[in-house]
Amino acid sequence: MPVAIAGAASTEFGEHPESSARELFVDAATAALAETDVSLADVESVYVGNFMGALTDDQGHMGALMADYVGVPDASSVTVESACASAGSAIRQATRAIEAGTTDVALVGGVEIMFSTGMEKLTDALANAADNEYENEAGLTFPGIYALMADEYMNEFDATREDLAAIAVKNRMNGVSNPISQFQEEISVTEVLDSRPIAPPLGMYDCCPITDGASAVVLVSSSYAEASGLDAPVTIAGSGQAGDTIALQDRAELARTRAAERAADSAYESAGIDPSDVDVCEVHDCFTIAEILAIEALGFFDRGEGATAAADGETAPEGRIPVNTSGGLIAKGHPVGATGAAQVVEITKQLEGRHPNQIDDAAIGLTHNVGGSGASAVVHVLEVER
Amino acid sequence: MPVAIAGAASTEFGEHPESSARELFVDAATAALAETDVSLADVESVYVGNFMGALTDDQGHMGALMADYVGVPDASSVTVESACASAGSAIRQATRAIEAGTTDVALVGGVEIMFSTGMEKLTDALANAADNEYENEAGLTFPGIYALMADEYMNEFDATREDLAAIAVKNRMNGVSNPISQFQEEISVTEVLDSRPIAPPLGMYDCCPITDGASAVVLVSSSYAEASGLDAPVTIAGSGQAGDTIALQDRAELARTRAAERAADSAYESAGIDPSDVDVCEVHDCFTIAEILAIEALGFFDRGEGATAAADGETAPEGRIPVNTSGGLIAKGHPVGATGAAQVVEITKQLEGRHPNQIDDAAIGLTHNVGGSGASAVVHVLEVER
Repeated sequence: MPVAIAGAASTEFGEHPESSARELFVDAATAALAETDVSLADVESVYVGNFMGALTDDQGHMGALMADYVGVPDASSVTVESACASAGSAIRQATRAIEAGTTDVALVGGVEIMFSTGMEKLTDALANAADNEYENEAGLTFPGIYALMADEYMNEFDATREDLAAIAVKNRMNGVSNPISQFQEEISVTEVLDSRPIAPPLGMYDCCPITDGASAVVLVSSSYAEASGLDAPVTIAGSGQAGDTIALQDRAELARTRAAERAADSAYESAGIDPSDVDVCEVHDCFTIAEILAIEALGFFDRGEGATAAADGETAPEGRIPVNTSGGLIAKGHPVGATGAAQVVEITKQLEGRHPNQIDDAAIGLTHNVGGSGASAVVHVLEVER
Repeated sequence: MPVAIAGAASTEFGEHPESSARELFVDAATAALAETDVSLADVESVYVGNFMGALTDDQGHMGALMADYVGVPDASSVTVESACASAGSAIRQATRAIEAGTTDVALVGGVEIMFSTGMEKLTDALANAADNEYENEAGLTFPGIYALMADEYMNEFDATREDLAAIAVKNRMNGVSNPISQFQEEISVTEVLDSRPIAPPLGMYDCCPITDGASAVVLVSSSYAEASGLDAPVTIAGSGQAGDTIALQDRAELARTRAAERAADSAYESAGIDPSDVDVCEVHDCFTIAEILAIEALGFFDRGEGATAAADGETAPEGRIPVNTSGGLIAKGHPVGATGAAQVVEITKQLEGRHPNQIDDAAIGLTHNVGGSGASAVVHVLEVER
C-alpha cells in the first residue's frame, strides 16, 4: 500500500476542561503538520473520528468544522464513526482514498471530549456503542459487557484476577514515561485487586479512564512523498477491518473477538507478513481482559495463553512482543473517537525511533482498534524502511 | 470509475412511528438487495449515512448494527457523517474503497428517524450541523441560516418570493406520482406565499418537512459485475466532494455555495462531461432557495439566473434540465442521513427507465447533496450504457 505517514501527534490525554473538541483537534493536527514539510494548502481531505460530539459538544458535522478550523475549509471532509474504532476506521477510509488515487494528502485524526459531560450522561453516551434495544434496555453497559467476557474467559481458561491485574500494572508502568499519558504513576497488583469493584471481576484499575484528547496523522501517497522529497519513512503496509454481531448475546463464543481475528488476517495478508514479524503493537485495552483477547486475536498467543503474557513479562517492552508501550488505553487514556489515531501516532514514533519507551530496531508495528464489545475491529500494519 | 449500481431502493418517506432506525435501514437494504442477483454473502462492506441516531435513537455504531441486522455481521462497516450530506459521503467513501480494489461489493445507505424525537429536541439536533459555538449560540438554526442566504440572493438578483414559491410548486407536483413521497398533493403559488412564516422570506412551504426514512444502494466493482453476469447498467461515472467554512459568517458571499461549485467541477472532470450533458438531476432543496443555489453551482444556470428557472418551466420534467423529478427534499422528504442515497436511488431509476416521472432517454444523471449551509457538498454523476 503506497501510503506514507508524514506527521503524527497527539495532545496530552487527560482532563481539558477549558477546551472544546475543535480546539483539541486543531492542537493535534497542527502538531502533526508541524512535523512535516507538507504544505497546508496541499491537504485535500480531512477525516475526523468522533463518537459522541453530538451528545457532549452539541456539535455534529465535525469533518467540515475541523477542516475549517485547521485552515483548509475547501477540503473534502467527513466524520467517521465506528464507536471506539472511529479513528482507526477513519485512517482506513483515508488510506483507501489515497490508494484509489483521488487524494494525495489527507489529514486524519480523532477527538473526544468526555470529562465535562458528567458521568451519568457519559455512561449513556458510551452505551450507544452497544445494541440499544437489547443490551442497554437490559441494563447492560460496557463495564458489564466486558465483565461477562472476562468471566467467561476466566472460566474457560482458568485465568485469574492476578493475570488481569498484571496487564494494568504493565500498562501503567509504560505510561510513566509517556509525556501525553493520563496516568504517569506505577500501581501494584495488590492495588488493582483491591480497587473499587466496577463490574466484577473487573475493578476500577482494570478499566481505562475517562479522557479528553485528540490525535492526528498526515497521510500522503508515496508518489507525493517522493515528488516532494518528504521525510516520511513509515508506511501503512497493511490494513484490515471486519465486524461481528453488535450484541454479545448473538455470539457463539464470548471469550473471543472474531472481528479482530478477521481484521488481523486481512491486515497480515495485505502486508505480506506473519504475526511473528511484528516488533511492537498498540492494542485496544479498554479493559484488562480486552488486551488478552487482543493478543490472542492477533495471533501472538494461542487461545487461553494470552492470560499470563503480562505476568510472565512477554508483553513488556523487553519481552517477546511488546504490547502497549504507550501505556495503552488503561494508562495513556481513551478519548474514544481519537484512540485509533493515537495508536498509529505511537507506533509511528516507535518505528521512527523516537518513542519514550523505544523498542530497539522496531521495524514492523501494528495497531488494533476495537468498537463496542468487538462488533468492529480495525488493524493496521506499519513498516519503516531501514 | 468502474463502480456499478446493482440495486437501489428507498422505504416510503414520511412518518414511521413504529419503526426504529435499524428496521427502516433493513427494509431499504433488503429491497435494494432484492433487485439484484448479488448474493448477501458477497457483501464485504457496509456504509451507513446517519446524522443524529445518538440523539434520536440512543444508538451509535450504526455501521456495525446495520451490517448485523442486514445479515452480514462479519462485514467491514462504518458510519459516515457529513450532516445532511452523510449518505452522499458514504457513497463516495464506498466508491473509493471499490476503486482501491479492497471491496467488490458494498451495501451503502442512510437512515434517519426524526418524527418521534419531538420538535424542540429535533431543532437542537439539526442545529448540530452548524457551528455550535458561533451560530447556534447566537440563536441561529437552519431556517434562519437559509433565510439569510435567501435574503441576500433576493437583494443581489432582484428575485422574488414568487420565484421561490415556483420551486415548491414544481417539486410538490413531481411528488404527486412518486409512491415514496411524503407529500403527494399539489400546492399553488398562493398557498406557498400564504404559508406560515418560518424565517422570512421563507414560509412553511419553502421548507422541506421532517421525515423518517431510509435508502440503500448495492455498489459493485465492474469486474465483479462482469464476472457475475449482473444486470447493472448504471455506473458512478464521476464524483466530487468539497468543503467551505462551517459558519455562514466566514463566507465572502452568502448567496453562493462554493463547496458545491468545487464538488461539481471535480465530478464533471472525473466523468469527462459538461453540465450541458446532464439529462436529469436530484439536488438538495432543503429550502426553496437551496435549489436555486444548487442549479447555479452545478453550472446549469448563470448566477442570478436560476431564480426564474422553475417559474419558467426550465427545471420541470419537460424542461431543459429536469430538477428533482422525485419531488426533492421538499415533497419526497428529507430523512437527513438518508437523503444522499435517496437521490442516487431516484437517478438510478431514471437511468434505468423506471422512474414514476420518467425523463425520456435519460442517459446521464447527477446528484447534489449538501451538508449544513454548504460546508460539505457531494456531487455524483451517474451514467447508463445505451
